[in-house]
Amino acid sequence: MNSLYGKDLITTQDWSVEELEKTLDLSFEFKANRYDHPLNNCLDRRTFFMFFYNPSVRTRQSFEAAATELGGHAQFLEPKSMRLKSAKTAGETVQDAAEVMSRYAVGIGIRILETALETYGQGDELLREYAQYATIPIVSMAHDRFHPCQGLADVMGYRMHAGKNLKGKKLVQVWAKGALVRSWSSVQESILLNSRLGMDVTLAHPKGYELDPEVIKWCEENAQRSDSTFEIVHDLEEAYKDADIVYSRNWMTSNFYDYVAKDNVDGAKSKEIQLASKYDDWICNKEWMSMTNNALFTHCGPVDRNAEVTDEVCDGPRSIVYDVAENRLHVQKAIMALTMGKQ
Amino acid sequence: MNSLYGKDLITTQDWSVEELEKTLDLSFEFKANRYDHPLNNCLDRRTFFMFFYNPSVRTRQSFEAAATELGGHAQFLEPKSMRLKSAKTAGETVQDAAEVMSRYAVGIGIRILETALETYGQGDELLREYAQYATIPIVSMAHDRFHPCQGLADVMGYRMHAGKNLKGKKLVQVWAKGALVRSWSSVQESILLNSRLGMDVTLAHPKGYELDPEVIKWCEENAQRSDSTFEIVHDLEEAYKDADIVYSRNWMTSNFYDYVAKDNVDGAKSKEIQLASKYDDWICNKEWMSMTNNALFTHCGPVDRNAEVTDEVCDGPRSIVYDVAENRLHVQKAIMALTMGKQ
Amino acid sequence: MNSLYGKDLITTQDWSVEELEKTLDLSFEFKANRYDHPLNNCLDRRTFFMFFYNPSVRTRQSFEAAATELGGHAQFLEPKSMRLKSAKTAGETVQDAAEVMSRYAVGIGIRILETALETYGQGDELLREYAQYATIPIVSMAHDRFHPCQGLADVMGYRMHAGKNLKGKKLVQVWAKGALVRSWSSVQESILLNSRLGMDVTLAHPKGYELDPEVIKWCEENAQRSDSTFEIVHDLEEAYKDADIVYSRNWMTSNFYDYVAKDNVDGAKSKEIQLASKYDDWICNKEWMSMTNNALFTHCGPVDRNAEVTDEVCDGPRSIVYDVAENRLHVQKAIMALTMGKQ
Repeated sequence: MNSLYGKDLITTQDWSVEELEKTLDLSFEFKANRYDHPLNNCLDRRTFFMFFYNPSVRTRQSFEAAATELGGHAQFLEPKSMRLKSAKTAGETVQDAAEVMSRYAVGIGIRILETALETYGQGDELLREYAQYATIPIVSMAHDRFHPCQGLADVMGYRMHAGKNLKGKKLVQVWAKGALVRSWSSVQESILLNSRLGMDVTLAHPKGYELDPEVIKWCEENAQRSDSTFEIVHDLEEAYKDADIVYSRNWMTSNFYDYVAKDNVDGAKSKEIQLASKYDDWICNKEWMSMTNNALFTHCGPVDRNAEVTDEVCDGPRSIVYDVAENRLHVQKAIMALTMGKQ
Repeated sequence: MNSLYGKDLITTQDWSVEELEKTLDLSFEFKANRYDHPLNNCLDRRTFFMFFYNPSVRTRQSFEAAATELGGHAQFLEPKSMRLKSAKTAGETVQDAAEVMSRYAVGIGIRILETALETYGQGDELLREYAQYATIPIVSMAHDRFHPCQGLADVMGYRMHAGKNLKGKKLVQVWAKGALVRSWSSVQESILLNSRLGMDVTLAHPKGYELDPEVIKWCEENAQRSDSTFEIVHDLEEAYKDADIVYSRNWMTSNFYDYVAKDNVDGAKSKEIQLASKYDDWICNKEWMSMTNNALFTHCGPVDRNAEVTDEVCDGPRSIVYDVAENRLHVQKAIMALTMGKQ
Repeated sequence: MNSLYGKDLITTQDWSVEELEKTLDLSFEFKANRYDHPLNNCLDRRTFFMFFYNPSVRTRQSFEAAATELGGHAQFLEPKSMRLKSAKTAGETVQDAAEVMSRYAVGIGIRILETALETYGQGDELLREYAQYATIPIVSMAHDRFHPCQGLADVMGYRMHAGKNLKGKKLVQVWAKGALVRSWSSVQESILLNSRLGMDVTLAHPKGYELDPEVIKWCEENAQRSDSTFEIVHDLEEAYKDADIVYSRNWMTSNFYDYVAKDNVDGAKSKEIQLASKYDDWICNKEWMSMTNNALFTHCGPVDRNAEVTDEVCDGPRSIVYDVAENRLHVQKAIMALTMGKQ
């Protein structure tokens, strides 16, 4: 039995570098042998539950395909039809739900983002509560704090296009304008994981777009341990200069939850969209890219074209967005095979 | 070909005791050999349709997992997107729907409960209309009158924890307060099936919570035939005294449909919740359990904790709720294998 | 590798007669060997995406069952949860969606009908835009213009009941009253395909129910090339006289989209229903059928009984509606096997 069997994946920060490398290795193997790998039947007739508190197409498609390719089946579940107990309503406790689901399935994926929550961190708490009671692995399919599968898919893409040794290469994680009011999850996972694996990470955003302070502290510690650098800048020139990889993506401010509380989700989104629209320069375009070290362009998708990035860059020869999207499949197969595949 | 092949399961009352025992035997075999039983590929590439007129998480999870574990696939269908003919609207007849579905699949599960119906019994009629036209088995996934899969999962749990010979043991089916306004289906199936299989069944509820008179009459006949007893009491002491198994669960009054007609579903639920809240003693707790013969505690789930049962009892050493929930999977696999598996 | 591998199917008109015959041959083979054909595992662990812009039960059931029977899995996706870019909202482009989906799956089915569109032809354009960017086949699951799978299922039914040589036999495609405001897709596919394969096709409808002029032009060209006849009549006697196959079905007027623009979908439907109700004679009944050459009755389903056809005819000995419905499964398996099955 491998050491990852039974392990939850709520953020890559919870796993050792060795465990992450093992997962990436298997992801590359699955990519090379899509339907013919020895582990390719490791979910044979097993069930994986996918809980979508928030909808998603990409994540659902790639997780369901991953289970199918391993011989299993992923059930698409929307908790709106689930009578879970809450402060206001009678229903089932997370304990009971998790205990029972553990009897039916080999793993549970959960997606829960800002618009389904009242405060930042609630989603992470819910995943950890499920993990406490479930006797099968809980895998984040993106939640308010983290998005481990995206983080691993990113790294896989960088290694495909920039080589396995990324030590000393500069990743700039740069905020972008846009009207989609994005979650922090992919961005936080990216800076955590890449600072951990030894890249020099630059986080760039306008003032007011600060991320989770605890995540920032972990990034600093990660960089120190991996003998790399982590810095935060508010200037685009500084950000793009000599970058090897550019990851341009919009995200919301930390005030989003307050806006929702005062107004509602739609009101909060309007406020965020209005605010973001002021930063006209914050788009990844040919001019900014010309300052880099012929950088790769990456994005977790879906791309908000001509807001987060111009068509020219997104469709250009250094764009790896489709490969990164594909990698979600390989990475998720590897996670499933290692944490819940038959032994 | 086995005798159950092609048979509908709308209530266990429609099957012979021998057929039920055969199903339970196979359920235990599937439990012992979850992925390795000789029948474990008996739905190989076959389709089972699940029609959820009412939503459910547990039932959907366990049926879909059951089909997957047998090598088949259960399609999750919600009839809101189905243009069925009704008194008011043009659409497809049940005849046409059932005939065509019989061409695509090997079986059809249907769930339809109070809130989708106008009068008690309509759900049962719909299942029997489907059964009339379909050339493949119809299986109840809980309807207004019955819940055969739950009934069999209950019995399997009792046998796991109290031995196969339950003759003369006392099952108390006791009403409980709570805010979930439950269907009669699980409760009626339980008293029918256990009176049939020879337990001494005591049905306990406050006056006003009477169940379907025809079901009560069948329970009396079942008890007579199986040389056991069936009684109805309105007193908790009498109910719990010397019980071997306690099944505490809320259910609605027979006025629910009238309340819906006068008001609407939400109004009817409010009325039922208000009414149920008066019976403060009707909760399964340590004190009541101390009067029993060290009884097992069971419930079909999802449990409304601290209304139907205290945490102390539900999490205590005599609680079998998670095992019973798990048994849904094994029982449903056995039903599918016997009634629609390849021969 | 067969010549159909990788090919889109948006209408049968895009395929050669030879390709269509090859598909029909395989459909008959799948019918004869439902679970045992050599190609029956050709989607082994592969994913097929089904995009339902409009809901459907029959189409979903038969496509999902088809993928299951070939060893694969069809994901049921509703684009309401997909953030696609539109004129009004930020989101993902069709290019990005199609490119990424091509990384996860072996094929994509799309259903999009009138009520999800603003003008006739938009659905066809969307399918062709997907086909432009996807590197995997796009299959129409019915769209505003065409319904190729239904067309092939129809032909298969005719050959089962009237023999393989349909040359010179008369198919009457006759409009019927009814309250379901049907799409043009099945009807247009039917007249296109059968004029192509050599039947004498008569299209019959009241004035005002004209179909797409380009489709009509193609039908005329098809008939010329296949040395058969294509005619349009507005008289029921002329229509039914000496027919070998009667396909009676309601469809909307070409004004439907204008009605929606002026009013809304419900308003437009009311207008169409009111208009259609004037044509009391336009129902397929015993009297009209008595004028035919003992014709088969067919319909793509779901049937609007006693509007499109009487019970007597629909349940009569010459009705092939259930067989045609079943053929959807066989035909779709053949299309999948040939265009996206492993080679």
